[in-house]
Amino acid sequence: MNKLIINFTPTGMIPTKDMTPHVPVTINEIVEDVHRAYELGITMTHIHARDEKTGVPTYKKEVYAQLIEGIRKYAPDLVICTSLSGRNFNTLDKRADVLSLEGDLKPDMGSLTLSSLNFNKVASMNAPSMIEDLAKTMKAKGIVPELEVFDVGMINFGKYLVKKDYIRPPLYYNLLFGNIACAQTNLLHTGVMLNDIPEDALVSIAGIGNGQLMMNSLAIAIGKGVRVGLEDNIWFDAERTRLATNTSLIERIHTIAKANNREIMTPSEFRVQMDMEPGNGRYGRIYK
Amino acid sequence: MNKLIINFTPTGMIPTKDMTPHVPVTINEIVEDVHRAYELGITMTHIHARDEKTGVPTYKKEVYAQLIEGIRKYAPDLVICTSLSGRNFNTLDKRADVLSLEGDLKPDMGSLTLSSLNFNKVASMNAPSMIEDLAKTMKAKGIVPELEVFDVGMINFGKYLVKKDYIRPPLYYNLLFGNIACAQTNLLHTGVMLNDIPEDALVSIAGIGNGQLMMNSLAIAIGKGVRVGLEDNIWFDAERTRLATNTSLIERIHTIAKANNREIMTPSEFRVQMDMEPGNGRYGRIYK
Repeated sequence: MNKLIINFTPTGMIPTKDMTPHVPVTINEIVEDVHRAYELGITMTHIHARDEKTGVPTYKKEVYAQLIEGIRKYAPDLVICTSLSGRNFNTLDKRADVLSLEGDLKPDMGSLTLSSLNFNKVASMNAPSMIEDLAKTMKAKGIVPELEVFDVGMINFGKYLVKKDYIRPPLYYNLLFGNIACAQTNLLHTGVMLNDIPEDALVSIAGIGNGQLMMNSLAIAIGKGVRVGLEDNIWFDAERTRLATNTSLIERIHTIAKANNREIMTPSEFRVQMDMEPGNGRYGRIYK
Repeated sequence: MNKLIINFTPTGMIPTKDMTPHVPVTINEIVEDVHRAYELGITMTHIHARDEKTGVPTYKKEVYAQLIEGIRKYAPDLVICTSLSGRNFNTLDKRADVLSLEGDLKPDMGSLTLSSLNFNKVASMNAPSMIEDLAKTMKAKGIVPELEVFDVGMINFGKYLVKKDYIRPPLYYNLLFGNIACAQTNLLHTGVMLNDIPEDALVSIAGIGNGQLMMNSLAIAIGKGVRVGLEDNIWFDAERTRLATNTSLIERIHTIAKANNREIMTPSEFRVQMDMEPGNGRYGRIYK
């Protein structure tokens, strides 16, 4: 069986300290949670920045710069993917702000959601032109897209981006299940999505809320990667009696992985498979 | 085999006279195309209003009133569904404008798209709160929603609306295949969607562009209904050598239906199955 990608999502945009004291929101907290996860063993981290004073999501590259600097100080090879979400600030200059970081501060990857969609309470706008512009910007910078897929048809838009040469294989997909108006946490939806993904692509599977454990465990069983962290679920158990910590979630993944004879994929192994060699930035991939 | 629903979509929001001279855009043209289709045999019609002078899509109830009056003059029992699309005017008061028509001018149904999504060039915003507000408005008026589904997960949001009692069975779904970031025109996607639809719901199947004939023909073969008309495809053949007319598209459906031993469902038969009895308006369904 191939090695297990663990994509660690410590923070997200939704959890607050009121919801759980365990969610890392300051720069120090996020960097510490990522370091702890790195020591346990992860492949990559998908980070969201928060305003240091208010804890509210921010797009600002200055905040991302501090996060990336802090993470790389102790985890220099860890693959870092920054959120390009437009949920709270939907203009190209804001969403692409973090992509202008250079050198040692340049992110390896940026998230690219492949359609507009509805979350449980709000719409998330990703018009075709916005997706194309973000893809082109990343390509020019040698930053690799993390393809975020919430429903079946979004995979087809990824194929369109490849056809147009806005993105290039090797591809990495996050498949996210359990949003109310998107693919559900069941085998039929998962099977259809995996059937549509290009065969040589790398894939991690996430479940929103209570679906996280089932979808992560399923992914480990079938040879896929996992996306795991407080971003997707703040509870450790389905009965919601115990709040999760990022450490407890990763340790559980390790337990299940070990019992399934699956080794964790190292950041370097991921970089080889994704053709993410040091480029004009330290971690950027160069498109020729 | 059960009877065949033909949901006739003559106009839509995209086709212009420049694209095809056959698309009906004025009130007279739309009414005439619907009458011709009614004489050939259809179950229902899904209409979009256009500004009489510019041909641009309009939400205005005054235009819809003339369309509905014109259609009912010669086709009094035909089921009329008006578009509540927000693609060009995305506020509740505009999208719900047509729902305030009363008495003989009241539409039987209104379209209700179950999520935000991307079309090929633009995003279509339908935030959860907007969908709920449109559903509640229709329920209060006794107007039945036509549930528009473009990808797998949207069906789950329909189930949520039922659970919240914002909509009530019996339900009618349009499944639309072939948008670039939505479900594709293949058997796997179609099968998964049909598997998720409540068993007692009525369903019509549409294909966008070249997919129209395949998806309509498939629907006839498996006992489902069709949505057909120039809204979804202006060409008669896949090679795009011959522009379709609404009449030619409906005649082809009739030919395939006849060879498949499927009779066309009459508007009255549809009303019985959908529990759309005359209500406080002439065609409205009363929720008790």
